[in-house]
Amino acid sequence: MPDPLAIASNLAADFETTAVARDREGGTPKRERDALRASGLLALSIPASLGGAGAEWSTIFRTVRIIARADGSLGHVYGFQHLLLATVRLFGTTAQYESLARGTAERHAFWGNALNPLDDRAILSRDGDDFVLHGEKSFCSGARDADVLVVSALDANTRKLVVGAIPANRAGIRARDDWDNMGQRQTDSGSVLFEDVRVHPHELLTQPGPLGSTFATLRPLIAQLTLANVYLGIAEGALEAARRVTRERGKAWFASGVERAIDDPYILGIFGELYVELEAARHVTDAAGSAFERAWARGDDLTADERGAVAVSIAAAKVTTTRVGLEVTTRMFDTAGARATTARLGLDRFWRNLRTHTLHDPVDYKRRDLGRWFLTDVLPAPSFYS
Amino acid sequence: MPDPLAIASNLAADFETTAVARDREGGTPKRERDALRASGLLALSIPASLGGAGAEWSTIFRTVRIIARADGSLGHVYGFQHLLLATVRLFGTTAQYESLARGTAERHAFWGNALNPLDDRAILSRDGDDFVLHGEKSFCSGARDADVLVVSALDANTRKLVVGAIPANRAGIRARDDWDNMGQRQTDSGSVLFEDVRVHPHELLTQPGPLGSTFATLRPLIAQLTLANVYLGIAEGALEAARRVTRERGKAWFASGVERAIDDPYILGIFGELYVELEAARHVTDAAGSAFERAWARGDDLTADERGAVAVSIAAAKVTTTRVGLEVTTRMFDTAGARATTARLGLDRFWRNLRTHTLHDPVDYKRRDLGRWFLTDVLPAPSFYS
Amino acid sequence: MPDPLAIASNLAADFETTAVARDREGGTPKRERDALRASGLLALSIPASLGGAGAEWSTIFRTVRIIARADGSLGHVYGFQHLLLATVRLFGTTAQYESLARGTAERHAFWGNALNPLDDRAILSRDGDDFVLHGEKSFCSGARDADVLVVSALDANTRKLVVGAIPANRAGIRARDDWDNMGQRQTDSGSVLFEDVRVHPHELLTQPGPLGSTFATLRPLIAQLTLANVYLGIAEGALEAARRVTRERGKAWFASGVERAIDDPYILGIFGELYVELEAARHVTDAAGSAFERAWARGDDLTADERGAVAVSIAAAKVTTTRVGLEVTTRMFDTAGARATTARLGLDRFWRNLRTHTLHDPVDYKRRDLGRWFLTDVLPAPSFYS
Amino acid sequence: MPDPLAIASNLAADFETTAVARDREGGTPKRERDALRASGLLALSIPASLGGAGAEWSTIFRTVRIIARADGSLGHVYGFQHLLLATVRLFGTTAQYESLARGTAERHAFWGNALNPLDDRAILSRDGDDFVLHGEKSFCSGARDADVLVVSALDANTRKLVVGAIPANRAGIRARDDWDNMGQRQTDSGSVLFEDVRVHPHELLTQPGPLGSTFATLRPLIAQLTLANVYLGIAEGALEAARRVTRERGKAWFASGVERAIDDPYILGIFGELYVELEAARHVTDAAGSAFERAWARGDDLTADERGAVAVSIAAAKVTTTRVGLEVTTRMFDTAGARATTARLGLDRFWRNLRTHTLHDPVDYKRRDLGRWFLTDVLPAPSFYS
Repeated sequence: MPDPLAIASNLAADFETTAVARDREGGTPKRERDALRASGLLALSIPASLGGAGAEWSTIFRTVRIIARADGSLGHVYGFQHLLLATVRLFGTTAQYESLARGTAERHAFWGNALNPLDDRAILSRDGDDFVLHGEKSFCSGARDADVLVVSALDANTRKLVVGAIPANRAGIRARDDWDNMGQRQTDSGSVLFEDVRVHPHELLTQPGPLGSTFATLRPLIAQLTLANVYLGIAEGALEAARRVTRERGKAWFASGVERAIDDPYILGIFGELYVELEAARHVTDAAGSAFERAWARGDDLTADERGAVAVSIAAAKVTTTRVGLEVTTRMFDTAGARATTARLGLDRFWRNLRTHTLHDPVDYKRRDLGRWFLTDVLPAPSFYS
Repeated sequence: MPDPLAIASNLAADFETTAVARDREGGTPKRERDALRASGLLALSIPASLGGAGAEWSTIFRTVRIIARADGSLGHVYGFQHLLLATVRLFGTTAQYESLARGTAERHAFWGNALNPLDDRAILSRDGDDFVLHGEKSFCSGARDADVLVVSALDANTRKLVVGAIPANRAGIRARDDWDNMGQRQTDSGSVLFEDVRVHPHELLTQPGPLGSTFATLRPLIAQLTLANVYLGIAEGALEAARRVTRERGKAWFASGVERAIDDPYILGIFGELYVELEAARHVTDAAGSAFERAWARGDDLTADERGAVAVSIAAAKVTTTRVGLEVTTRMFDTAGARATTARLGLDRFWRNLRTHTLHDPVDYKRRDLGRWFLTDVLPAPSFYS
Repeated sequence: MPDPLAIASNLAADFETTAVARDREGGTPKRERDALRASGLLALSIPASLGGAGAEWSTIFRTVRIIARADGSLGHVYGFQHLLLATVRLFGTTAQYESLARGTAERHAFWGNALNPLDDRAILSRDGDDFVLHGEKSFCSGARDADVLVVSALDANTRKLVVGAIPANRAGIRARDDWDNMGQRQTDSGSVLFEDVRVHPHELLTQPGPLGSTFATLRPLIAQLTLANVYLGIAEGALEAARRVTRERGKAWFASGVERAIDDPYILGIFGELYVELEAARHVTDAAGSAFERAWARGDDLTADERGAVAVSIAAAKVTTTRVGLEVTTRMFDTAGARATTARLGLDRFWRNLRTHTLHDPVDYKRRDLGRWFLTDVLPAPSFYS
Repeated sequence: MPDPLAIASNLAADFETTAVARDREGGTPKRERDALRASGLLALSIPASLGGAGAEWSTIFRTVRIIARADGSLGHVYGFQHLLLATVRLFGTTAQYESLARGTAERHAFWGNALNPLDDRAILSRDGDDFVLHGEKSFCSGARDADVLVVSALDANTRKLVVGAIPANRAGIRARDDWDNMGQRQTDSGSVLFEDVRVHPHELLTQPGPLGSTFATLRPLIAQLTLANVYLGIAEGALEAARRVTRERGKAWFASGVERAIDDPYILGIFGELYVELEAARHVTDAAGSAFERAWARGDDLTADERGAVAVSIAAAKVTTTRVGLEVTTRMFDTAGARATTARLGLDRFWRNLRTHTLHDPVDYKRRDLGRWFLTDVLPAPSFYS
């Protein structure tokens, strides 16, 4: 496979040309999703032996970031592709993973998400040798135009969370077109309806099951680190856009004492400040990526302490990219100026995408977990969000 | 006239019901502009002897803020109504003001802006006893659906700025429908085209002319203080919206240790912080309003030092409302949560409106002017922006 | 009495000349305390009918701020003079207040504080018709060189807090010289030892007693507002000092592109920013002062809602002055430059004083209380700190 | 040589026990400087072939950080040891470096600084075959108790800056005991007087001379990166101290709703926030260290573009550690509480040290240089400060 970063960059360059228009439209970016399918990047995390590219996680996260620079929505659903495949690897058996991964590589399958563990409306019940899934899930990013879905439900008897992977076109599944939000508008993060959906036992991921081993608790960490990379990518895209626009400004503000806008001391100061913040965010996020990669390589030998250390590192990346991203996507306008608010440029999409996505789970609880660990040596408790 | 604050509140309540939809549409809020006409508020600043309500400036600014809470666009064009009338009072003769003010009160005239002094494309030339205006102006807020326009142009001979007030339906004027920006979408802040537009000498404001006396230099201060009140109103509306949404949230975040979202210590802390910031912004802006009111009452006796002191006070309000507004409109989401990003609520409009409008002129130069004054006792130099 | 603000300004000018040296020494500023005694300001809050100046609270707080500009320690103990007198007015009978206030005015008595309600080591026990006070109190600002002490203790039987006012030279009282802290070094905020100290029944403030009526719950609000004014004064003194030092700087930084340091765009920007912050803090604090003055005038008619509204206003002042003060006392150095770190100027005292004093009670709980009120309409619960 | 990090840690542990007392005293930390001499760390940067430890720059910077955690002053002068040796390497000939480095390793020589290039009062004049140095220099960190001094002066003829390395006990040199500042109190950063000091030609560093080649322009980058590591170390020491103190706090604030201070949600939040900031600062600074190490290894092959890229990286570290350090050393008290202001703990020394040292050169110009580079691709111009 050619260099994944180059592939991602090419895709990003293409996605960017239509990002403003697609942000306005919302809905499913079918053409772009198909371009991702055709690129081979959807199999980036899959071992070569199963038909994939066998890339390391640090590479995977970099491609996520590159896509997110151009388009936060595509960065999100593309990033979740790898998360959802890893979910099978972590919650299920080797056989399950191999079968699904091989199929994914072969058919360029795009995975969608219907797993929201805080939404308890979907129920899984026994029905003979099979199961039946009924109910609803919210915040199902990438569920439309998906080929495979990772779903979760409460077991009707035990009320415990069960996770499975099923074909997205299974009878009874309806991914609604009801995501119409202020940002991340092409993630299709709406609701999925399950009406008596048949689920086969081998489709359930029960060995070790959800968060069923220390290794399995890496799953939420992939999710969090994917988010951090998406945030970072959005912020990088924003500052790059501000640079482009500011470079095209002509005369400086009449009272500035300089001729050209690009010599305005305050504009330069803002760019310097935002660049530094982004640089810090990049380093923290890259460090978390490397830490994660090492933890992943540990497999079932991973200890709770090792896992906790990675969780700390990733939480730091999440907190930093959130703070920095919000600052960059707001203050970029102080360099770009009033004319940069034209809808044609659509520069507000960076803030809208970031502000929407950073609400995935409250950042204050990341800070609290980090503070508790720092102060009392208690590691963040594994959950679907930490 | 009934209490102007009550009238403004009633209008605001009405405007708010359609604010999200109208933000999406952009264009001219004809129905709302007509409601403002019918309300009598357009004559709020006009003395009773001329048919107006004779309100004090502090009252006027409060009505601007109230309207802006519900709708930043309407807050802007409504606020500029008073600015534009004051422009005639300050740059023109008493006779000019009395005639135009009386007519405004009688016909509920809405004033529009085509004055951008940084745009030098409009030229005024002699044509016999009259003048002819030709060219273009950008950032002409409220120029569509206006009854009267304040225009500026460069004198073809002297290259000096000339300001006039002319009927908006004068032949040759075309207010283009070309304002499509990320915020303040119903302000019609696009361009106006002048094609051989006849201007009569008595329509030019030359006694004392633009910034032609110390008293006349109050004009930019009204503009700046209007902006500060619009920013403040937008921020107040945002925090109020966040309160409403957060009150309706049910369960707290699963890891919070409390039951209800409204008991979450971090959510409470954010509300406390933002409330305090807004409170500070309110006090600074009100103080600037009172200072301005006193300066206005001085009329032609106003000294440069008195004018400078008010300029300092208003600059402080501008800087504070800008900073606080951006913070409130971003952080409000950390209380309202992920579901609050639905397009139905349109809560991003607060940030988009504020971010757009706060680029009117660079806030860093307000800080610089304040710093220079504080450090060296040099008052801000009067200009169209300070 | 001459203008209290002028008296305070004169005292401040004097205190400032020795502030650096006295900050280094710590201990009791005996000469300065005697100057306060001689000035008559200690009786500022006492009605003229009782021999005082009968000043309004807004005037009193302004004098506190003026003193604090020159010297945070003196601002603190001087401010607490009025708080402690008011404690008698609020917790005790009219007769108690009149007697103690008249004596204070006559003898220029300085009041000291031994009331820390969070320290439960002092116990008051019945002893015949009298009481005996035994134990210890920490954080007893101004207890050394005091003429009268406000003390608190737990009732040996009920474990309830009792508050009394007793002569500071009463046998068995020892105000230790054990305050050696990083800031507010001349406040003598150390410990007081009570060894079988006799207390007479008429010295106990039991009608209505501590926080014994709505009116009595104004006591903590005076304390909080006094703190806010001290913080504000310290910050104002800091920025003024930075201005003085910066004005004396000669050449600008070699890479700045300007000749004189006073034209450096970043130095001007910082001054502008800090000035604006201080201006906001001033307005919020003055507004709280006016609100308090009105509440005080209500006396026993004061309702819980009215009290709550003032509490909100004062909490806002406390939060704002804390945030702004820390920022001003840190960033002032970015204008004053490296040479301004000389011990001769002692400019670090502003930060040390403010940082020390702002830990009186945690500002995050002020934010929480404000947030809860804003979100849920629940007013801050009266306590010794809110 | 044993592990330099372990040696540094042991020294730091020792230095910390007396840091509070020595901060109070100021002056020269003779005992600690001798401990540094005895440790062998002064020769850390010297190649093994010349008798040193031959450590990499990333290791060197880590030892600086470790020392600075315990004591900012010692971190500074210890860090400058390596800077001053490198100055010989960069500005002088190989022979000069080898001779001086070998001597340094043999005699455990401590280098002092008298180079301030912005102070033009020292003049070097021809005197036969020799030179004579006359005048004065300010901000001469570590000049007292130094064995060798790096000095600079203006050439009497050319007015160009000349740099030399001479024995500190050369006749006519007087390092004054006149550093009495609010922070970094044991750095002896006072003035050095030169009275007809003889300088031999071979002591002048003229090949390639000050900033005399691209490789030579790495000198200011070492200085800046040393500062960044000192700032980072101070901030790390501060947060660690806050952790220790906070862990010893007992009951939580009465209104917090939790029992123990270590469960207070706001205290945890602050620790989380500050930890994240420090983590970012660490990563940015480490990345700059690695970048520098690579640039150093390039020697005379170093290109201007490569040098510029490192300058950008180091400037980012400087800006980040400055911002984060000021925040950590101020906000740490919000976790540690009022009792932590006792002079016994001396926790204010972190802020005082950092605030003093961060004024070395204005951070706003670092931001500007970074902004200019980001916006216009113009690399920071090499100077003694960039």
